[in-house]
Amino acid sequence: MLANIPRPSHADFTYQEKYGIRVSSGGGRASARETASRVAAGAIAEKWLLDKFGIQIVAWVSAVGHLTLPRDLVSLGDITRDQVDATPVRCPNAELSDEMAQLILDAKEEQDSVGGIVSCVCRGVPTGWGEPCFDKLEALLAHAMLSIPASKGFDVGSGFDGVKMKGSEHNDLFGCDNGKLHTLTNNSGGIQGGISNGEQIVFRVAFKPPATISKTQITVNFDGEQVELNTPGRHDPCIVPRAVPIVEAMAALVLADMAMIQLSRQSSKWPDN
Amino acid sequence: MLANIPRPSHADFTYQEKYGIRVSSGGGRASARETASRVAAGAIAEKWLLDKFGIQIVAWVSAVGHLTLPRDLVSLGDITRDQVDATPVRCPNAELSDEMAQLILDAKEEQDSVGGIVSCVCRGVPTGWGEPCFDKLEALLAHAMLSIPASKGFDVGSGFDGVKMKGSEHNDLFGCDNGKLHTLTNNSGGIQGGISNGEQIVFRVAFKPPATISKTQITVNFDGEQVELNTPGRHDPCIVPRAVPIVEAMAALVLADMAMIQLSRQSSKWPDN
Amino acid sequence: MLANIPRPSHADFTYQEKYGIRVSSGGGRASARETASRVAAGAIAEKWLLDKFGIQIVAWVSAVGHLTLPRDLVSLGDITRDQVDATPVRCPNAELSDEMAQLILDAKEEQDSVGGIVSCVCRGVPTGWGEPCFDKLEALLAHAMLSIPASKGFDVGSGFDGVKMKGSEHNDLFGCDNGKLHTLTNNSGGIQGGISNGEQIVFRVAFKPPATISKTQITVNFDGEQVELNTPGRHDPCIVPRAVPIVEAMAALVLADMAMIQLSRQSSKWPDN
Amino acid sequence: MLANIPRPSHADFTYQEKYGIRVSSGGGRASARETASRVAAGAIAEKWLLDKFGIQIVAWVSAVGHLTLPRDLVSLGDITRDQVDATPVRCPNAELSDEMAQLILDAKEEQDSVGGIVSCVCRGVPTGWGEPCFDKLEALLAHAMLSIPASKGFDVGSGFDGVKMKGSEHNDLFGCDNGKLHTLTNNSGGIQGGISNGEQIVFRVAFKPPATISKTQITVNFDGEQVELNTPGRHDPCIVPRAVPIVEAMAALVLADMAMIQLSRQSSKWPDN
Repeated sequence: MLANIPRPSHADFTYQEKYGIRVSSGGGRASARETASRVAAGAIAEKWLLDKFGIQIVAWVSAVGHLTLPRDLVSLGDITRDQVDATPVRCPNAELSDEMAQLILDAKEEQDSVGGIVSCVCRGVPTGWGEPCFDKLEALLAHAMLSIPASKGFDVGSGFDGVKMKGSEHNDLFGCDNGKLHTLTNNSGGIQGGISNGEQIVFRVAFKPPATISKTQITVNFDGEQVELNTPGRHDPCIVPRAVPIVEAMAALVLADMAMIQLSRQSSKWPDN
Repeated sequence: MLANIPRPSHADFTYQEKYGIRVSSGGGRASARETASRVAAGAIAEKWLLDKFGIQIVAWVSAVGHLTLPRDLVSLGDITRDQVDATPVRCPNAELSDEMAQLILDAKEEQDSVGGIVSCVCRGVPTGWGEPCFDKLEALLAHAMLSIPASKGFDVGSGFDGVKMKGSEHNDLFGCDNGKLHTLTNNSGGIQGGISNGEQIVFRVAFKPPATISKTQITVNFDGEQVELNTPGRHDPCIVPRAVPIVEAMAALVLADMAMIQLSRQSSKWPDN
Repeated sequence: MLANIPRPSHADFTYQEKYGIRVSSGGGRASARETASRVAAGAIAEKWLLDKFGIQIVAWVSAVGHLTLPRDLVSLGDITRDQVDATPVRCPNAELSDEMAQLILDAKEEQDSVGGIVSCVCRGVPTGWGEPCFDKLEALLAHAMLSIPASKGFDVGSGFDGVKMKGSEHNDLFGCDNGKLHTLTNNSGGIQGGISNGEQIVFRVAFKPPATISKTQITVNFDGEQVELNTPGRHDPCIVPRAVPIVEAMAALVLADMAMIQLSRQSSKWPDN
Repeated sequence: MLANIPRPSHADFTYQEKYGIRVSSGGGRASARETASRVAAGAIAEKWLLDKFGIQIVAWVSAVGHLTLPRDLVSLGDITRDQVDATPVRCPNAELSDEMAQLILDAKEEQDSVGGIVSCVCRGVPTGWGEPCFDKLEALLAHAMLSIPASKGFDVGSGFDGVKMKGSEHNDLFGCDNGKLHTLTNNSGGIQGGISNGEQIVFRVAFKPPATISKTQITVNFDGEQVELNTPGRHDPCIVPRAVPIVEAMAALVLADMAMIQLSRQSSKWPDN
């Protein structure tokens, strides 16, 4: 009978409309189970990026519901996956992590769910990755992140908060260390003009609260009749802790693609250049 | 001499790093001038989408600096381009528009700049557009929007705000009108499982304050020497009013691509289906 | 020990040069075993092309060694797969087929191998398939056919023989049947300007004699030392009979791709066209 | 009035069928005029291939009508463009060139046209270029050559003639010079398993007699009425001399693409390989 009810905010209705068929359980082809293969592929990309360039990619949970980890409590330069994995919520702040865990358990108790944000830093990315105009590095990262099930937003560097800044505050002035230019701040999030500038690449991905909840929902079935939808069972009240490795994997795949394009350019150089 | 100073938060430094060359004025290939061609192409896509499907795309300025247009002050169902173009700021609220204009003039006075947000609604998009898994409709929109110069973020439907909602609030329950299913709310922003669900597609794009300002900046030149950078001239203290048609154009191009893919699928159907 | 000898006219040497590795038996990734998947995919494409458009694709062996089936002995309008499969050589002429079979057995006896040609006709292809300039229909067919292992050449319509014709002989003049234009001859092979013209699409694919033979060969190993290469075992003395379904499958895949592109164009038409 | 007659073996009819429109003169978008841009782009690719790898690409006319230049009269190792350009026919054999020129003038006299073959050698291509399975080097060359207007066939190495050879004759046995393996013959045409093997890449392209002739042709117009078609004017009675630089240009573009892919692979190697 469930088969005849499109689950709210799921892909049941849209798959039926697009393909004229749907699966009756689990989400089928729209299930986040497909992200397992992304993580597998990302692991290979990550290993190559680390061995060849020394790139480190670390993501963590920076918000669950209304609980937000302030940016200045994270040390982008040395946060590690071990620190992230130290708590089940994957938030690298013990105190806040406990509050988040409680918030998730409360949601579970209420047969409800809650959203969150995953933040990510990529350290050691060389300058020069990313392609103008349409394949800017941030555009490809946004594409990759919004392809993760349940994601609703992406921003890079100062992001949506940067909107409120003045240009004189936001501009990343240059300094020089050992003859090498670098920026003194990083509101650009490591990307300028669509191309990596050698600074840390920093971005956030917003995830909605999971659509599958045990709470009764009054909706309609495919025949248009009002029904009570009850979907008992073990549902995940918050997915952001499990989204962390997916975000890392997709970042690795984008960076590896960009690396190969730029390596191709560099090795294709005219001999006398 | 300006030629030897990488302008902060511009693409001078990254182009030099990537290609080994740079232009000395205006931004060259990284200049937003290239978006003129996007708007030209988008105009054709928009016309086709309107004539063939009745799709209407309207974008507007929903924030300048700290001034934000509340969502409930915009009527997504009937906002028009005429309403948007009624004020120079392209914010469809006369009072707020005046405040925004003043904020922009203040920034100009200070030889500074200010950021903003462009919101967009696409009405009349049929169900079934967007491709799982990697080319979800929101992923392609995010790709397109983050390819616009100076954009820093994208979210769809509830977006970053949806993070704070419970699943039971966020889920878009179904109702039925004249035998046709539709959702009673639209936190999904018109897309579920990466596929359009027939509701309005709603998204936001964040833009940073323009990097080119007249205010003196202390930075370093390509030789690593500290310099005072002064770039007098007519600079745009806020780009969001001018970004409105670019956002509309990129949305139209993404929708037209998705339309053609879905039309191809529909017309390729096995004869007895 | 065989592992250290690059088999002549095989891919052992080039894979080693390209990837720095090679397999020691069977051909590995370069083995024609991979064509099994092409035939599987082609079967689906063929079924769709037949059901939706009434397209029939039939290929056959038109030459083995010096034995060639004259073009005028094949009735392109009604040759069937049953006729082709009636003999083990897959040549639809009983007498010549016997001679070819003997030639192949002779080659086997001599521990040698022999080449051949596969011809193919596609009946019922609508007008309008194929894309200028670079994706002309014949260009895509050529690409597909030369991707089949051991193929050495492709020609369409009059092909290499057309070189010797005068324009006044070669030109396919138009006639008219029931208000529908068609060509009175078909030297074009069903394609004009890269686009199908509604006539039968006719082409040939040349295959070299298989490289793996039992006959002793004097060659060198990877260390540059002269060696006697003996590769006893069951080797295929002629592959063209087995290439017939592969040619059909690749033709079907190319036509299905072109069909979908053209269907997309047709269904994307401006409403008032 | 000519506008209403589809020229035989031209693209008038197929463009009308595909797009619902046609141009009334010259061939429009299907005109070989578009190859000018291919030659321009090819010139850049050729220069890069020469400077970076020492690659030389030389094409010539090897047949006009029934007149064929025997393979053993061309020295593939040192034929130059100057030798080719020494005669207006671009056949590097003075005597045969004269006969070909006469044959072309005869065709012109008869208001007719004649076909021909262009052969091409690429010297100095490194090992390892070309991608299995579908983008074999010969497959991409075939795609490129069959995209040239009026081409009807392509073969590589022994090509269609190799069909008649035994495997023991056709196989290219290896020898060793200065510790470097090479083949003693080159029936493979410089490509094995879809990958360049370091030998000369040799291929042929067949061209039909030009479709535009002054001779009167009895055909039908778009309304299906029989008409006499007369197209006086200066028509090219043979295009192969002018096809020579186009074949060279397309070969250069394919090789440059493959070079960049392989350079990308080589420079992407895991650090400890």
